[in-house]
Amino acid sequence: MGYTVQGFKASAVAAGLKNKGGLDLALIHAENPATAAGVFTTNLVKAAPVILSMEHIRDGKARAIIANAGNANACTGLQGMQDAQQTAKSVSKRLAISPQEVLVASTGVIGETLNMNALEKSLVPLVASLSPDGFEDAAKAIMTTDSFPKMARFEGVAGGRPFKIAGMAKGAGMIMPNMATMLSFILTDISIEVAVLQDALREGVEKTFNRTSVDGDTSTNDTVFALASGMAGNGALSQEDHAEFLSGLTRVMDDLAQMIARDGEGATKFVTVELRGAVSAPEALAGARTVANSALVKTAVYGRDPNWGRIMAALGRAGISMEESLTDIWIDDVQIVKGGLGCGKEAEKRAGERMEKDAFVIIIELHLGGFSEKMYTCDFSHEYVSINADYRT
Amino acid sequence: MGYTVQGFKASAVAAGLKNKGGLDLALIHAENPATAAGVFTTNLVKAAPVILSMEHIRDGKARAIIANAGNANACTGLQGMQDAQQTAKSVSKRLAISPQEVLVASTGVIGETLNMNALEKSLVPLVASLSPDGFEDAAKAIMTTDSFPKMARFEGVAGGRPFKIAGMAKGAGMIMPNMATMLSFILTDISIEVAVLQDALREGVEKTFNRTSVDGDTSTNDTVFALASGMAGNGALSQEDHAEFLSGLTRVMDDLAQMIARDGEGATKFVTVELRGAVSAPEALAGARTVANSALVKTAVYGRDPNWGRIMAALGRAGISMEESLTDIWIDDVQIVKGGLGCGKEAEKRAGERMEKDAFVIIIELHLGGFSEKMYTCDFSHEYVSINADYRT
Repeated sequence: MGYTVQGFKASAVAAGLKNKGGLDLALIHAENPATAAGVFTTNLVKAAPVILSMEHIRDGKARAIIANAGNANACTGLQGMQDAQQTAKSVSKRLAISPQEVLVASTGVIGETLNMNALEKSLVPLVASLSPDGFEDAAKAIMTTDSFPKMARFEGVAGGRPFKIAGMAKGAGMIMPNMATMLSFILTDISIEVAVLQDALREGVEKTFNRTSVDGDTSTNDTVFALASGMAGNGALSQEDHAEFLSGLTRVMDDLAQMIARDGEGATKFVTVELRGAVSAPEALAGARTVANSALVKTAVYGRDPNWGRIMAALGRAGISMEESLTDIWIDDVQIVKGGLGCGKEAEKRAGERMEKDAFVIIIELHLGGFSEKMYTCDFSHEYVSINADYRT
Repeated sequence: MGYTVQGFKASAVAAGLKNKGGLDLALIHAENPATAAGVFTTNLVKAAPVILSMEHIRDGKARAIIANAGNANACTGLQGMQDAQQTAKSVSKRLAISPQEVLVASTGVIGETLNMNALEKSLVPLVASLSPDGFEDAAKAIMTTDSFPKMARFEGVAGGRPFKIAGMAKGAGMIMPNMATMLSFILTDISIEVAVLQDALREGVEKTFNRTSVDGDTSTNDTVFALASGMAGNGALSQEDHAEFLSGLTRVMDDLAQMIARDGEGATKFVTVELRGAVSAPEALAGARTVANSALVKTAVYGRDPNWGRIMAALGRAGISMEESLTDIWIDDVQIVKGGLGCGKEAEKRAGERMEKDAFVIIIELHLGGFSEKMYTCDFSHEYVSINADYRT
């Protein structure tokens, strides 16, 4: 099957943790101890499952991921930690592994304790339905306000042996550089050292998920796990193999990151903001990020309005070197600003036509240096406000 | 009259610069050269009138402010500078003063050149209608998406003589700490040295307008002018007089700042975010600002939802010292978080009732140190999106 990875099974059930019903509890099981790496939220307020999983992954091994949607188990104090521990313990019993081998992830409402009764009851059918083809169900079960499950894959060759990477992700609101209410689980059958996997994951996250912004908020629950079963049977990774794996991993995460921005809460447009010609990479990123996060730019995108003045204003407050009179801006192939000045009504009309598409690129050229960066974002719509004003009610 | 200040006249006309019509050109005229201070946008992209006024105010004197709404004269290059200069020149001729004595301010759409023809034609009726009672008309003329004119005043005593401060402001969207598409003109009849006035203005702006956030964007046009006619006839300011003036000036600007947040684009709620118990003043402000700017918090406020998890998440990413388990949160007098944990459904219900009011306070106590700061903000509504998606169309 498309997302099957040697050495892993997955499953999902409806445990009743989501208000709106549907699949909400996912399990991934590695037949043998898998090499495990993780990247976690930078928020000082960390959900109980994040704190627990940071501990459990420290030895670089894992055999299971249990993830629920509907309740974030964040800001739940001692009770929350006990519930996360109990979840790991119960899963470990059913799979005959140790609690330390179980990684836990949660996403959903903050500040309410988990319905452990419902969760515990669901473990029996959850374990019973583990299957090599369970990946897609698991991807559905971790959705919250997502409108579609997010999956991506890559197939490559290492040491003469084919290997595979399959990733799932969820995330729609609270998405912002430095992670988001974003969960992503990456499975691969490659054989890889844990330090190499951890470095690759961190580097990939930086280039992909951390280049994605929906609303500028950072969640308490963000978690990316990568599990490697080693069943591809490749030997030690050559430099070339390593490059292939890194590129494949980054591609999978880039695909997922783009899907997250496309599926931003209430989003009607997927926008790539590309900043070129900055004096440094951090400045290129800061500029792209400020434009991508600007509520005024995002509402203009929703209105299909090539309101480049708002882009200039965002650049001017981004804390980066920029010269108004050197700055050029394009919407896709249509230049709307040249040397800091508008290119006229005709150009804006054609740019507005480009903005009717589901996806387009805002290209900014500062003409100051040789550094470029991009950010993925989406527009700010009426629907975003509706989703977030009514989330709990 | 209520906003009349000795030594000043004001007027306004409909010059046809606003798409929707109405008063859009304001003039303030000082009978004698007034002591003048200014604070300007920190945005690197500065509108032409900002650049010109920064020059004109350098000598600490001014005799006129000409301000238009409907067009920001920003990102308009050389033409924009020429138009701003021409405006100052034309006004100076009609008032028989020098162009250097004229301060210029603009607010509205970015990237389009001013309709100089319409502006020039309107100067005759504008000057003809100058009146000691013209303050309110001028306050109306500088409105863009504002729903009401913003005026505040203060009366005090210095050197045994009564003095008065009257301020007007506009600003609804693009409001953010470090100024906003915000114009504010403060008139006073006190006699004061220019350096003292400049310091007082800067300090007051920092404590008031820079504590106000609507959408996290910073405009290219922000300008605060203070003009003092000296006609109160007080002598040199004593320490006590100085304190009285500073407190009055800050009160006027604080009133205006609150009106700006209340009138935030699409706002239905006025919210004060008060952060207490931080380890330093900058951290107190950074924490309050992050909560006040969070799109998730602002949409929850719109939904009258005491979703304290989003407040905790914002604090956790604010880059400040905080301990989840020490943090308390109130909505007005209702505690909803104690020691990092929710206070239960009953407390949330009562907090939700407080949020039905037009205005309320979110109080956060970190219990880490002795520093407090506050921010003024508003909610994020469907109407905000409508206003900003359709602004130019």
